[in-house]
Amino acid sequence: MGRAQVAVIGSGADGAEQAEAVGRLLAERGVTVVTGGRDEVMAAAARGAKSAGGTTIGILPDETRDGVNEWIDHVVVTGVGHARNLAVVASGDAVIAVGGAWGTLSEIALARVLGRPVVVLEPGWAIEGEGVERASSPEESVELALRLARTAVDEKSQ
Amino acid sequence: MGRAQVAVIGSGADGAEQAEAVGRLLAERGVTVVTGGRDEVMAAAARGAKSAGGTTIGILPDETRDGVNEWIDHVVVTGVGHARNLAVVASGDAVIAVGGAWGTLSEIALARVLGRPVVVLEPGWAIEGEGVERASSPEESVELALRLARTAVDEKSQ
Amino acid sequence: MGRAQVAVIGSGADGAEQAEAVGRLLAERGVTVVTGGRDEVMAAAARGAKSAGGTTIGILPDETRDGVNEWIDHVVVTGVGHARNLAVVASGDAVIAVGGAWGTLSEIALARVLGRPVVVLEPGWAIEGEGVERASSPEESVELALRLARTAVDEKSQ
Amino acid sequence: MGRAQVAVIGSGADGAEQAEAVGRLLAERGVTVVTGGRDEVMAAAARGAKSAGGTTIGILPDETRDGVNEWIDHVVVTGVGHARNLAVVASGDAVIAVGGAWGTLSEIALARVLGRPVVVLEPGWAIEGEGVERASSPEESVELALRLARTAVDEKSQ
Repeated sequence: MGRAQVAVIGSGADGAEQAEAVGRLLAERGVTVVTGGRDEVMAAAARGAKSAGGTTIGILPDETRDGVNEWIDHVVVTGVGHARNLAVVASGDAVIAVGGAWGTLSEIALARVLGRPVVVLEPGWAIEGEGVERASSPEESVELALRLARTAVDEKSQ
Repeated sequence: MGRAQVAVIGSGADGAEQAEAVGRLLAERGVTVVTGGRDEVMAAAARGAKSAGGTTIGILPDETRDGVNEWIDHVVVTGVGHARNLAVVASGDAVIAVGGAWGTLSEIALARVLGRPVVVLEPGWAIEGEGVERASSPEESVELALRLARTAVDEKSQ
Repeated sequence: MGRAQVAVIGSGADGAEQAEAVGRLLAERGVTVVTGGRDEVMAAAARGAKSAGGTTIGILPDETRDGVNEWIDHVVVTGVGHARNLAVVASGDAVIAVGGAWGTLSEIALARVLGRPVVVLEPGWAIEGEGVERASSPEESVELALRLARTAVDEKSQ
Repeated sequence: MGRAQVAVIGSGADGAEQAEAVGRLLAERGVTVVTGGRDEVMAAAARGAKSAGGTTIGILPDETRDGVNEWIDHVVVTGVGHARNLAVVASGDAVIAVGGAWGTLSEIALARVLGRPVVVLEPGWAIEGEGVERASSPEESVELALRLARTAVDEKSQ
């Protein structure tokens, strides 16, 4: 069934440092990092993962590889525009949100529609609801995401 | 280019009365009501529109018409699951949100990604940001949505 | 459940005359014409439908109404690029193909994946398979499509 | 920008032996094998790639990993149903078709809409058109696909 995968979502230059740490920590735990494949938070998360020898998947909105960042190992070109947001979060066992604008909020919401646990790294979208947790550091976000991912899988197996 | 269209989004039984009023008021203004085509808020908005002789479009997630409510005139079967949320809001010149859970939040966010103005009818998702306004009655929500839709179109024409 | 809907697909200037006749004949039978909403065959089918007082739905690939032809009554903006081809054929009780290139072939195939009957108007894609019939005139294509649509619905009801 | 990727499409048990050889040959050339992630041809191609130490990506139609075959390294869950066919072919620098029914035909056509070269392994869909070549052996299909992929990339760079 493949390895554990966590989606790291977000945008904006401000979250880059946090996202890089998240990517690195996930890679150190042997978890594949899934992102939207582009710049800023997405690039930083992938760069962090590669710095620790990890594996990265980038899921792009357009019909070509144009705009993919250089730290993506495996490129998925969806051709469905912003509907690729659904694929990004659906491909994660859990989702970590770093910063972000409307696109990120759509991903948080779509993740919850599909039952994927979401961890929002502070600061970030002030969204409350079942299945959405907050973390104050990259370390905490990764711990929480992996714990919630295991719980989600265990519940499904029962 | 077709008539003015407003998307009415939401879920939950609580918003049905509001949604029916919104649908009726839009129809009285000659505006086509676009929804996700299913039950609760979606059905109420369409029922309201038909009670005033209006026109309704339902944009469904599955691969058949199954589950469409009886007040839908024109059925669009997308086959793309929750990615149909993107089509619902993209097809509105503006969006009115009534109640709703995660799916509705994803639609509010996707509407803003695409630049569509959003009016949240009180109570509802407590989301703030550029292009999202709040209304305290169905009448106010419809007035605001139509005004914002015109402004959005005017800005685009310049 | 709304009215009967038939999707008219195709591209290229050569099929315009045929497509216009198909659109007109469908409208005369009270059937709503669904198309991809753009130019050539899509515009001709919608123009034919409107010339007979019919109703038209255009399902667009982009994130705005840009490029929609003037004979579309109800505009669905999907934002999912060529994945809108799936929505076009899924929204028809049957599909009539007039001329066309690769996009049209993808629609014929997707229609069959979903179990929608397809009528190819001569000349056109030389595709054979269960559920694909050929017609030598617009009149024959409309008769066949409506018959196959009824049969498909009857089989489903059993 | 990641490694070379080729999409192997098809369905049906008959093509399994061919698909396994195609997957193996691609892996031996260092090319990542992209498939729809499910059974028959898709599973055989992935199995072949893994037998040669290669890398595999599976792009699934549903909202969970259910049904993914055991030879998939990286799982993309799209949630968009048959619209995932677009992502499968868009993610390949070239496409090799082995056997297949309507879904495979839709993928061949969508590949050509996007300008991806297609190689049909004999027997298979009898489709002719610019950018579609035929091969009589797995070896020939892989040689052709890699040559066409390079040409497509070179043309784009000019």
